[in-house]
Amino acid sequence: MRVEAFRYEKVADRVARMIEAGTIRPGERVPSVRKLSRESGVSISTILQAYLWLESRGFIEARPQSGFYARINPRRLPPEPEVSSPPTMAGPVNLGDLVVQVMQAARDPEFVPFGAACPSPQLFPTERLHRAQSSVIRRIGAQAHTYDISPGNQELRRQIARRSIHAGCDLTTEDIVITCGCIEALNLCLRAVTSPGDVVAVESPTYFGILQILENLKLKALEVATHPRDGVDLAALQTALRKQKVAACLLMPNFHNPLGGCMPEENKKELVKMLASKDIPLIEDDIYGDLPYGPRRPVTAKSFDQKGLVLLCSSFSKILSPGYRIGWTAPGRFQKKVDRLKLMSTMGTGTLPQLVLAEFLNRGRYDRYLKSIRTAYQSQAQLIAEGVGKYFPQGTRVTRPSGGVVLWVEMPPSVDAVELYRRAFEKKISIAPGNIFSCKKQYRNFIRLNCGQIWSDRLDRALLTLGQMAHDLAK
Amino acid sequence: MRVEAFRYEKVADRVARMIEAGTIRPGERVPSVRKLSRESGVSISTILQAYLWLESRGFIEARPQSGFYARINPRRLPPEPEVSSPPTMAGPVNLGDLVVQVMQAARDPEFVPFGAACPSPQLFPTERLHRAQSSVIRRIGAQAHTYDISPGNQELRRQIARRSIHAGCDLTTEDIVITCGCIEALNLCLRAVTSPGDVVAVESPTYFGILQILENLKLKALEVATHPRDGVDLAALQTALRKQKVAACLLMPNFHNPLGGCMPEENKKELVKMLASKDIPLIEDDIYGDLPYGPRRPVTAKSFDQKGLVLLCSSFSKILSPGYRIGWTAPGRFQKKVDRLKLMSTMGTGTLPQLVLAEFLNRGRYDRYLKSIRTAYQSQAQLIAEGVGKYFPQGTRVTRPSGGVVLWVEMPPSVDAVELYRRAFEKKISIAPGNIFSCKKQYRNFIRLNCGQIWSDRLDRALLTLGQMAHDLAK
Repeated sequence: MRVEAFRYEKVADRVARMIEAGTIRPGERVPSVRKLSRESGVSISTILQAYLWLESRGFIEARPQSGFYARINPRRLPPEPEVSSPPTMAGPVNLGDLVVQVMQAARDPEFVPFGAACPSPQLFPTERLHRAQSSVIRRIGAQAHTYDISPGNQELRRQIARRSIHAGCDLTTEDIVITCGCIEALNLCLRAVTSPGDVVAVESPTYFGILQILENLKLKALEVATHPRDGVDLAALQTALRKQKVAACLLMPNFHNPLGGCMPEENKKELVKMLASKDIPLIEDDIYGDLPYGPRRPVTAKSFDQKGLVLLCSSFSKILSPGYRIGWTAPGRFQKKVDRLKLMSTMGTGTLPQLVLAEFLNRGRYDRYLKSIRTAYQSQAQLIAEGVGKYFPQGTRVTRPSGGVVLWVEMPPSVDAVELYRRAFEKKISIAPGNIFSCKKQYRNFIRLNCGQIWSDRLDRALLTLGQMAHDLAK
Repeated sequence: MRVEAFRYEKVADRVARMIEAGTIRPGERVPSVRKLSRESGVSISTILQAYLWLESRGFIEARPQSGFYARINPRRLPPEPEVSSPPTMAGPVNLGDLVVQVMQAARDPEFVPFGAACPSPQLFPTERLHRAQSSVIRRIGAQAHTYDISPGNQELRRQIARRSIHAGCDLTTEDIVITCGCIEALNLCLRAVTSPGDVVAVESPTYFGILQILENLKLKALEVATHPRDGVDLAALQTALRKQKVAACLLMPNFHNPLGGCMPEENKKELVKMLASKDIPLIEDDIYGDLPYGPRRPVTAKSFDQKGLVLLCSSFSKILSPGYRIGWTAPGRFQKKVDRLKLMSTMGTGTLPQLVLAEFLNRGRYDRYLKSIRTAYQSQAQLIAEGVGKYFPQGTRVTRPSGGVVLWVEMPPSVDAVELYRRAFEKKISIAPGNIFSCKKQYRNFIRLNCGQIWSDRLDRALLTLGQMAHDLAK
């Protein structure tokens, strides 16, 4: 299964590149499924999967009784950013006040919300959640108000464990600890495997929240070169591990924030093997793993874990309800330690939201719902990327996320993203400036754009405004 | 106001002691309100308040048209434990697995719940909370699922600030940070004012959760002698502070867990002054502050804080719903630091429970409800203390809590509380053995009993069983 999954991605990628490069021109027929299967030795179902994926991304269209045709290239997009090149030594983190300001503006309802990696509330299955909630309350009454101490609600843990098969894992109920969002999971896992002063390897760029957690726990960050599509550069990581003692890696192999890339399966396998050989724990942030743009959920690095060294972390915040604050971790051999840290950090997680999510998952509509928001996020990301292509200055680059809810935009070197952030703030548009994604304050001319909001004229106008400001700053 | 409050307690205490000592015998009339006021120079309303308090505790009864009479002493209670005498030097904490076992047994619904300091779900205003919840959901719909990042819901913070007047404070909305229970508040406050390796002064005995937090944060505990009724011994604290560098104090001046005592106002004032003179932050755990057995809520040490050095922590877990996981802190001059630590520890607190609590508080039934559970807790504590008096071996002592939900029981020195815990565990009765309330493993012959559960034959039988076991162990 895994080999096939990898193949479909490869096939899709190859065809996509041919269309982007103009090798297959808009309106031309792409090779028939049968023919391509015969020639490439890949099964018909895999090719079909690849074509469906390409169709879902707007590269090709199916014409009844005829086959698949390349579309007019839907994305007149700027080129992609290149692999990052951060400094090679670890250092302390000190991001300062900007991050908090960015986060506050990002959540201010008066702002156009390009700042936070945050889904639009209209996309949540609010009615269904409330129905599940009413049903839970009718069933258990006052029990909804009792403590549910760590590791958390048994049925919710069972549901999460059951679903882990889609991520290539075979977790059990006992493997899982429920947490107050993925961010608590990351905190607890870091505390379980490091001590203050230790070095933690992260992607460069990486989610500023991760850098802030390291700062608060008095850990040092080692930023590792990362490819926008394929994730952390394994050779660079290897070299870094040789140079300095690293207590843990905290990586986001699936739909990285802010890059949007997804590490190929072989790289994940190699990564886990490399770290296992040195007994270095890997904290895997998989919060976007359920949000591929393609038809298939990628496996986790955890699926290759044989020594219990991978601490998988995720949450329901990007999918069902950030407000529930329900995350979870499967911390491998550190389960007991994490469980105990959780017990004495927040005691337990909200009782009712856990019960409601367990009920919701149990009703079995989750996958159908997932599919609908994946499509929504994908088309929103596409439209925003196109907008960047239209409105931003020559020389701007933008990532090709294969999942998740963000775009990473590289503007010409003369554009100062913090200044852009400030000017946008004046116009009540929130963005996340690039320098907070690195503790060395790199990425001064990058911004991250949230694609979690439903596309609208308001977003389009805000993007135009941002583009004009970037033009002014590029002069 | 404060002086009067202090006076009524003094008057009530004096009369109570006279009844306990038999100076005023059961059935005898106590001095009339008017007469006592004239003689003592204390106002009539204060005396009346003292008498109402004595009545609520069963010391006296009002006879219409006649006055107040001493009742048959309702508490044939064993004597009280004495002031504690812990070792005088700080040390690291290492409580081991027992605490987690105790906590798990305490929450197992199959166990008779004497273990956790945990209210009975039947005491929660479940219907009212669910009505408030429905009304919130109708009003805001999908917004209930959005992030509410730290410092938390504005209206809930305003309601908490408004109520602070009852605790002698004048907090503002901006002073307050909402947390995942009081335990997160304590964690964040400790992290804001200490570094790993620092010494934190605590009461002896103290809530084992506090010791575990110190252990997890790699802090050392300095246990200070504490009087069961009057709280930490200020002279002992003074001496300890002279001997070693203390980074912070973490104390529970109101209705201490496990002692149940309430520090007199003058001591609180003195404590705050003493710490302020040395610039030592005081983390004040006031989780039981709203649960006095008397008619009046005691003021907090925070009410005497002039330098912003007191970090007040509390929650709704002992009153409305542990399952909501809603606590809060007013961290004084450390507000910004705590807010930021919160942001990067759990991002925010559950959105819906915050909104529901704000709605509930806003509807103004909170005080009436509070009064009803105070009475419930008081009578439960009374009945359990009487049961201990009846069933436990000669030489057993029990505290006289003036609020909160626990009793602290000192058994004869030959009774090993851990062995009692084990035998009770076999019979599916949970208790908290004394040694986990000290990092030096003192209190080997003490247990803490939860009084949060509604009194029943089941509890009575369990108490009898415990008493018999204690008799066996005392031999």
